[in-house]
Amino acid sequence: MAWARWGCCPWLVFLCALGAWGHPKAANLRGEDVRNCSISPPYLPVTAVNTTAQLTALRQQMHSQKLSAYIIPETDAHMSEYIGERDKRRAWITGFTGSAGTAVVSVGKAGLWTDSRYWTQAERQMDCNWELHKEVDITSIVTWLLAEVPAGGHVGFDPFLFSIGSWKSYYTALKNSNIQLVSITNNLVDLAWGSEKPQFPSQPIYALKEAFTGSTWEEKVSDIRSQMQKHHKGPTAVLLSALDETAWLFNLRGSDIPYNPFFYSYTLLTDSSIRLFVNKSCLDSETLKYLNSSCSGSMCVQIEDYSQVRGSVQTYASGDVKIWIGTSYTTYGLYEVIPLEKLIEDTYSPVMVTKAVKNSKEQALLRASHVRDAVAVIRYLVWLEKNVPKGTVDEFSGAELLDKFRGEEDFSSGPSFETISASGLNAALAHYSPTKEQHRKLSSDEMYLLDSGGQYWDGTTDITRTVHWGTPSAFQKEAYTRVLIGNIDLSRLVFPASTSGRMMEIFARRALWDVGLNYGHGTGHGIGNFLCVHEWPVGFQSGNIPMAKGMFTSIEPGYYQDGEFGIRIEDVAVVVEAKTKYPGSYLTFEVVSLVPYDRNLIDISLLSPEHLQYLNHYYQTIREKVGPELQQRQLQEEFQWLQRHTEPLSARALRTTSLAPLLVVSSLIILGWSV
Amino acid sequence: MAWARWGCCPWLVFLCALGAWGHPKAANLRGEDVRNCSISPPYLPVTAVNTTAQLTALRQQMHSQKLSAYIIPETDAHMSEYIGERDKRRAWITGFTGSAGTAVVSVGKAGLWTDSRYWTQAERQMDCNWELHKEVDITSIVTWLLAEVPAGGHVGFDPFLFSIGSWKSYYTALKNSNIQLVSITNNLVDLAWGSEKPQFPSQPIYALKEAFTGSTWEEKVSDIRSQMQKHHKGPTAVLLSALDETAWLFNLRGSDIPYNPFFYSYTLLTDSSIRLFVNKSCLDSETLKYLNSSCSGSMCVQIEDYSQVRGSVQTYASGDVKIWIGTSYTTYGLYEVIPLEKLIEDTYSPVMVTKAVKNSKEQALLRASHVRDAVAVIRYLVWLEKNVPKGTVDEFSGAELLDKFRGEEDFSSGPSFETISASGLNAALAHYSPTKEQHRKLSSDEMYLLDSGGQYWDGTTDITRTVHWGTPSAFQKEAYTRVLIGNIDLSRLVFPASTSGRMMEIFARRALWDVGLNYGHGTGHGIGNFLCVHEWPVGFQSGNIPMAKGMFTSIEPGYYQDGEFGIRIEDVAVVVEAKTKYPGSYLTFEVVSLVPYDRNLIDISLLSPEHLQYLNHYYQTIREKVGPELQQRQLQEEFQWLQRHTEPLSARALRTTSLAPLLVVSSLIILGWSV
Repeated sequence: MAWARWGCCPWLVFLCALGAWGHPKAANLRGEDVRNCSISPPYLPVTAVNTTAQLTALRQQMHSQKLSAYIIPETDAHMSEYIGERDKRRAWITGFTGSAGTAVVSVGKAGLWTDSRYWTQAERQMDCNWELHKEVDITSIVTWLLAEVPAGGHVGFDPFLFSIGSWKSYYTALKNSNIQLVSITNNLVDLAWGSEKPQFPSQPIYALKEAFTGSTWEEKVSDIRSQMQKHHKGPTAVLLSALDETAWLFNLRGSDIPYNPFFYSYTLLTDSSIRLFVNKSCLDSETLKYLNSSCSGSMCVQIEDYSQVRGSVQTYASGDVKIWIGTSYTTYGLYEVIPLEKLIEDTYSPVMVTKAVKNSKEQALLRASHVRDAVAVIRYLVWLEKNVPKGTVDEFSGAELLDKFRGEEDFSSGPSFETISASGLNAALAHYSPTKEQHRKLSSDEMYLLDSGGQYWDGTTDITRTVHWGTPSAFQKEAYTRVLIGNIDLSRLVFPASTSGRMMEIFARRALWDVGLNYGHGTGHGIGNFLCVHEWPVGFQSGNIPMAKGMFTSIEPGYYQDGEFGIRIEDVAVVVEAKTKYPGSYLTFEVVSLVPYDRNLIDISLLSPEHLQYLNHYYQTIREKVGPELQQRQLQEEFQWLQRHTEPLSARALRTTSLAPLLVVSSLIILGWSV
Repeated sequence: MAWARWGCCPWLVFLCALGAWGHPKAANLRGEDVRNCSISPPYLPVTAVNTTAQLTALRQQMHSQKLSAYIIPETDAHMSEYIGERDKRRAWITGFTGSAGTAVVSVGKAGLWTDSRYWTQAERQMDCNWELHKEVDITSIVTWLLAEVPAGGHVGFDPFLFSIGSWKSYYTALKNSNIQLVSITNNLVDLAWGSEKPQFPSQPIYALKEAFTGSTWEEKVSDIRSQMQKHHKGPTAVLLSALDETAWLFNLRGSDIPYNPFFYSYTLLTDSSIRLFVNKSCLDSETLKYLNSSCSGSMCVQIEDYSQVRGSVQTYASGDVKIWIGTSYTTYGLYEVIPLEKLIEDTYSPVMVTKAVKNSKEQALLRASHVRDAVAVIRYLVWLEKNVPKGTVDEFSGAELLDKFRGEEDFSSGPSFETISASGLNAALAHYSPTKEQHRKLSSDEMYLLDSGGQYWDGTTDITRTVHWGTPSAFQKEAYTRVLIGNIDLSRLVFPASTSGRMMEIFARRALWDVGLNYGHGTGHGIGNFLCVHEWPVGFQSGNIPMAKGMFTSIEPGYYQDGEFGIRIEDVAVVVEAKTKYPGSYLTFEVVSLVPYDRNLIDISLLSPEHLQYLNHYYQTIREKVGPELQQRQLQEEFQWLQRHTEPLSARALRTTSLAPLLVVSSLIILGWSV
């Protein structure tokens, strides 16, 4: 999956690229029925939410805290990409449900800051209590605060909803002003929300079976402690804030967050203790036993209540200790209770960096999940090929069927994100997903983009295929083929160990750039073993860490023709050693997604012999890995489809199209010509 | 030119790459006669400098300032790449003359911190007063200071020799210690050096003729003021510290710095005045008139003495002003006198950024200088082809002859850097230049790398060619050809406007990476119009600004086989608009260096039809641009050589080598085969 729903902070880097590369404009899919606050009385569409009561309740809280303003970001206390219902505070106070945006409420005004993807949605969902600011940088918010807040005024915020970076930005920008930032751990929106706020989830937390884990939690703890011992700054503890860090470390999973099998948690792993902060009631006796929670030695997990984390960290930090954190996922709520001289700051925690490199068992698990995922996707593509011409399939029902097929696979645990099932012009929209009410019929006259993934106990998947069942235009074929070339050129790149993804992602764009085309999003992201579908810090963006053997990343170039169609071809690939002619430490990618590309959209004349060789080798791999799986399940129709769609591609098409250059070369060879 | 002599701070980024990419080890060219301080008495080679007197004199100065230590970087007050003799303070105090390294003297000890390129040189030049620290990071220096300096002790430094970044690093690292950094503008090494220190230069400063300037200084001043007016933070002044900023702004040149036509200077350009800080005695009446220096209006240049800059800026900063600076080239000596709230900080000043984009006249000037430079280089290559087989040419005498040929070109103003003339294994050394005493004979049995450039009134040039007059090995040909492919792949890249060089430089490496080869330096740098040969902020490194039409950059991949040979192919190219099939704002490069590559080293079988097409087009351009110039000067032999060396290359060689893949394709075409 590319940009859609990538809401948490690191993905902002990715989103920013949208502006830089000239993405298709965020069209207003559902009409232009937006509010008009400039007339009297104001016009409000039926979709607008009356927020007067919410604002009144919040301002009462602000008043009792003597605040002139209060900042409400859309995030949770773990900087999660997806957030639970109870963390949708900004949506509750504004009415606006988009995944990115910050609200600020002063005594007399209320403002929302969001990016261009969401402007129309905000104008449809917000009432006239709210100003819409079409900017997202903190400077713009601070400029507004400087005008709204009286000298000496206090601006409150929940430190658990501020990344360290956000806090530093606000703090620096307000440094020379007469306005003071006030950290208040008791969230004021929660107080205003009161009993209406969704409850803290109480779903069980469970241990993964050993068959689905790369190492035991004890091995992982020992490894992280060994890294602590080797660290020249002598950390005595590692503090984990991201939900996937704790889930990975203990091989535990939960269901507090949509699409991610996580549970609200923190971990303080010290040199002599392991302290897990969770909702204790979610742990049954079996899990407590699994965690050795009844003892108190260095390999026993002490369970503390989730709400105690700040106090516990503060108490620990009062000793002669050094706490190692990853600044990307630690909030100011914990940062501010640790004295600076006791902090060891890296961008990512050692757990985040260790998790990024899958060991051989984890690699095998992820590969296996991709074989089964391919079966589900192929079943769906076969079904579409038969049913789309009948005119009975729409984007939403299609996505539902795909979910069903995935659900029938072994170890399935639901989708890894909301399926992007987009036909025709909808595929050019930046963050489109169909709904039961709003969707488009699939047709043989249009391209169809399907970006979806599954959570399985052994791995998380994410794949995009774009198809056309009729007669695509020459331009559609050219654009598709150039996107495919980008995918191939990056996938087959040989590069030195430790090259950053950012440096190499241009290979995914070159064939498009050659003719003046491009795409407005990043080129790929890490992926987990039954963890995040967007797993940092692996990928092709500037914040990503260098590529290393055993990392998994998506490779997903695209092309979007505003108002007409969208193309994306996404595979997941693992970083493997490359055998080079001369010795050296070189790497390359091996694609583990196993679904053939749409032959109907490939203009073979644009492919070099190397591209054809690569493609045919990939198709051979698909046949070898997915074919037996289909046969074993007696999915004969799918097996035949797979055979047809993985026939080796040849240069035959060259006869009629761009044969000329090669023929010249051939002639020169035959004639022995030289100047 | 690649890494050699890139000493000033931005180039450190480039140098760091050496480590990352595994460059050839810095061999000790001149034997291993190094000091041995571990025996008694110590052994000192004849090259070692007795620094006891220097250290005694400096420590007297430190004592009178109550300092426990003093830091001596190797730079000047303008963060220049090349520094004048009078700025070689670190060399004077240590004996070590390498271009990179920092000395720190405490009451009882003295230490030098430098990188691996210079370790042997330092051991040969330093006496046993000095510890050699084989690290360069400030953390290492601070760790040493923390051990050497007593609690409450003061560490002195000259703020004019500290970049803002260095100062912040030292300041942050010492923040929680009991040691205080003390900024002392009166340089203590200068006081110790006394009358022996070279005088402040008094060479004349002169105005460039209008024919050699892109705009008048008045136009440039108006343009910068217009940028000030449009800036949302409302700067009232721009402060210029880099020497090429002032030289460019006023179209003035001097000769205070080796290889660069600069004069010591600062400029404070305000909304109502222009203040030029120089050695007044270097300006004659004609230049004073040229600068309207007799009036005091907003378009009159007020001349103030160079030494007054700090006081003048401080006085100006006491008013209701905002001073816009580029932090990369401003030293702490000026930074510390401007209150933070009156600073507008960008990485590069508006002059630096404006200068980076050459206007059409500047482009024409730079192109013209490259035509004449090609004549000089071709004359030299022709001469080498005749004389090397006689065994009478060495690296040093060759370089001298090339300088002579360049000197005979119109508008010549000397070399733009010390020529790298390196035969055989010397070409694999990171910073090799021959001397009268130490050089190698050129031979038909070895490769020869020539990296050189000229200063001309219309432009600065920089070109590298690698040649072999005998029979290169298959590996040498392969390596050369892959370097050439890298040069071509990057030169012909089509990319969207504003793409960063860092993102695209991988194209210069891909053909090498494919077989497990690489090079340990950056891929290119900006270049000026009779200014710096390494002109920031253009280039392919992470600190460079995005590419824009009208920028000039070198493109210079290489390959170095330690102890055997070195290859680099460097051209200067201008960023031009690309015509793409579909409309869009796309750019590409046009190479303006006009010397053919060595056919003897090209393995044509490795080139694609696109590479051959590109090469032949380039050769055609050389013929069209340089041919008439040679004929006009009646350089018939050179003209014939040029014709021979720019014959179109054909795929003939394919017959015997890698014909197979293409033949397969041809056969498929002919047979109409498809699977």
